[in-house]
Amino acid sequence: MSTFREDGTAALDWVATYLEHVREYPVLARVEPGEIRAALPVSPPDAPEPFAAVLRDLDEVLMPGITHWQSPRHFAYFATTGAEPGILAELLIAGLNQIGILWRASPALQELEELTLDWLRQLLGLPEGLHGHIEDTASSAVITALAAARAASPGRRVVVCSEHTHSSTAKAARLLELDLRVTPGDDVFALRPDLLDLSGACAVVATIGTTASASVDPIAEIADRAAAAGVWLHVDAAYAGAAAVCPEQRHHFAGWEHADSIGVNPHKWLFTPMDCAVLFSRRPDDLRRAFSLVPEYLRVSEDVVSLSEYASPLGRRFRALKLWAVLRCFGREGLQEVIREHVRLAALFESWVGAEPGWELCAPRLFSLVCFRREGSDDKNEALLNRVNDTGQVFLSHARLNGRFVLRLAIGNARTAEEDVRLAWEVLRREAE
Amino acid sequence: MSTFREDGTAALDWVATYLEHVREYPVLARVEPGEIRAALPVSPPDAPEPFAAVLRDLDEVLMPGITHWQSPRHFAYFATTGAEPGILAELLIAGLNQIGILWRASPALQELEELTLDWLRQLLGLPEGLHGHIEDTASSAVITALAAARAASPGRRVVVCSEHTHSSTAKAARLLELDLRVTPGDDVFALRPDLLDLSGACAVVATIGTTASASVDPIAEIADRAAAAGVWLHVDAAYAGAAAVCPEQRHHFAGWEHADSIGVNPHKWLFTPMDCAVLFSRRPDDLRRAFSLVPEYLRVSEDVVSLSEYASPLGRRFRALKLWAVLRCFGREGLQEVIREHVRLAALFESWVGAEPGWELCAPRLFSLVCFRREGSDDKNEALLNRVNDTGQVFLSHARLNGRFVLRLAIGNARTAEEDVRLAWEVLRREAE
Repeated sequence: MSTFREDGTAALDWVATYLEHVREYPVLARVEPGEIRAALPVSPPDAPEPFAAVLRDLDEVLMPGITHWQSPRHFAYFATTGAEPGILAELLIAGLNQIGILWRASPALQELEELTLDWLRQLLGLPEGLHGHIEDTASSAVITALAAARAASPGRRVVVCSEHTHSSTAKAARLLELDLRVTPGDDVFALRPDLLDLSGACAVVATIGTTASASVDPIAEIADRAAAAGVWLHVDAAYAGAAAVCPEQRHHFAGWEHADSIGVNPHKWLFTPMDCAVLFSRRPDDLRRAFSLVPEYLRVSEDVVSLSEYASPLGRRFRALKLWAVLRCFGREGLQEVIREHVRLAALFESWVGAEPGWELCAPRLFSLVCFRREGSDDKNEALLNRVNDTGQVFLSHARLNGRFVLRLAIGNARTAEEDVRLAWEVLRREAE
Repeated sequence: MSTFREDGTAALDWVATYLEHVREYPVLARVEPGEIRAALPVSPPDAPEPFAAVLRDLDEVLMPGITHWQSPRHFAYFATTGAEPGILAELLIAGLNQIGILWRASPALQELEELTLDWLRQLLGLPEGLHGHIEDTASSAVITALAAARAASPGRRVVVCSEHTHSSTAKAARLLELDLRVTPGDDVFALRPDLLDLSGACAVVATIGTTASASVDPIAEIADRAAAAGVWLHVDAAYAGAAAVCPEQRHHFAGWEHADSIGVNPHKWLFTPMDCAVLFSRRPDDLRRAFSLVPEYLRVSEDVVSLSEYASPLGRRFRALKLWAVLRCFGREGLQEVIREHVRLAALFESWVGAEPGWELCAPRLFSLVCFRREGSDDKNEALLNRVNDTGQVFLSHARLNGRFVLRLAIGNARTAEEDVRLAWEVLRREAE
């Protein structure tokens, strides 16, 4: 155990030093496919090695293959943060090694998950009585929601979504053998309710904060139509859901309280380390009907519904502990402060792009995402993006909107400051010359 | 960041102290349903709290609701270990916060996962060329395998298993809308191949180390039959797969090299913290056909297949790092040593039960699991189990074999020593009086 304290001190120092210097690394890994693997032994050791050897190889072999999601200059996909309270909570989670297969296997795990998700519900301004549980990713959450919808509507095999819905819905539909009916979006990339056809549908997936442009579907109208047709409404707010912590953003969420299920990922914009995806539902009994199966060896005297009865996995990690730690150590005000700063920085960047000849904004700026491009061809923009990312100074990603290649600047890292966004703009302008 | 070092030192000390004293806790949590939740604030704080408050409440509020999976006196379900190298690797994983949605998002994550699973393949004596990826749980792994099997066999909608197959197969079949055909087991709880009916089947699930009794299905014969019928064979070795690290246990695994897919959970008996479930397959192209869907925003120039194309979740944690750390810090010899000791201790306990009047063994002892009961009624045995668990000294669970309630002593914690097993036997005999 003295080894554990020594090794742990070294590991903790490693992480602290990493976070202190994370701004200095090339953001996107600069390796060729296969390079990392080729630098490691092809076979495991026969004899035990010290943990120090793991740390050494992390530095010497793995680090060049790390893309720095913790960097304040990571603006790709949806930028994220594994914040300090969440990192340390992961140490506690692993130390306790709870395996929540049923209530008695870890009462604290189950009850803290229920409580923490009720805290999150309150922070997001959602109504009382919503049931919540944690999944690994939004991909799994949408499978859970659609499986419940399918079971609740026998014979209806269509899932309706928009052309801007995340691909995880299509992937879920394939797994569940449901037909996908894709509704066109309007000129701001929101689902067009006038083209919404819910006939034969068991579910409709609407999004607050789409992946490409952070656009917002007209939730209230879709909710009304879904309710009238008896169709399950799943709202994907994996990224933007966090913004509902700020009252001034709540207008984007109007109507989501009527959804049958809602996905929000604290590992996206709520500073919780990967992975932690929340599924809220006001129809937990339908989830349970679709998933509950309690084998003999888990039958016990307590009359408690295990969280595993609401989704596929039987075992669950003590993920609630990290979300709880983050919500406490940020507090409502701390969450609001960081999210507001991200929105402010995105608006600032938007203003720079809008004012600069030769550049154009490609979508309304919503939340903390700016879609833009340099005037000219797709190839020219793609080459620009590659040059920008090759500098290692910042990392951005792309999307396709109206058939055109556009660049995305996504702000979501808690360490991102104005200087980082300014640097991104400087690098973009320099590389565009 | 000085706060992070301070808080981290406190968290590390907390975990070290916990592990030093873990033997002293009542193993099964002694709380009533709702008790933990009721002791916590119903709403999140507005202002930030220090991390020290999280540690304080962990001690004062949550700990009574912890069932001690890390205790060497946890003999329930399948006992597990979150070993020290894996715990510290979780700290590193959270610190780096990699989100492996595609290769470039973390080349180190993807390549270390591929390499580490090839190490594991070698340790288990499996043939070259198997593809491996990590899932959260065996429940998810069997969904992935059966979805690939379904896609590979259009029109065939039956999954065949044994009455002793883990409930996750039935749950997966429900999600995938496949019909479950349950084959009876023989008198040692192994699937009866003479009763195996593969007509119309897309998959058969066979088990090495069933949940109730650790029984082993006749894999080689099932594999031959499955191959002849063109049926996908999935081998569930979630618990017992680890034993294949020891050559003297390999005879139980004869034929598994012919399986189309194999599930092994390092978070069960390979000392890796929850969660880490491995799915090996020799038909990765079939997995990919069932799951691959690459949206525009993830299209890049590198010609690399992302691990997310083999299963449902898009995002993935850097779980490979903890498995890699465990395999290195134990080494092949270290893994063998602990597994052999567990098997020895189970055999020892089996010998005590077998020699004691008034007790009976209820299944052949395989691997590190002993199934037994006190002579008398089911109610008497259930009451005995409850009394034993109520002492807090040890924690055992139960199963039903041949319709009878039986007690299970599962050895799988790396800290379990002969004195712990001896204590379990003493408590059992004392409470049986």
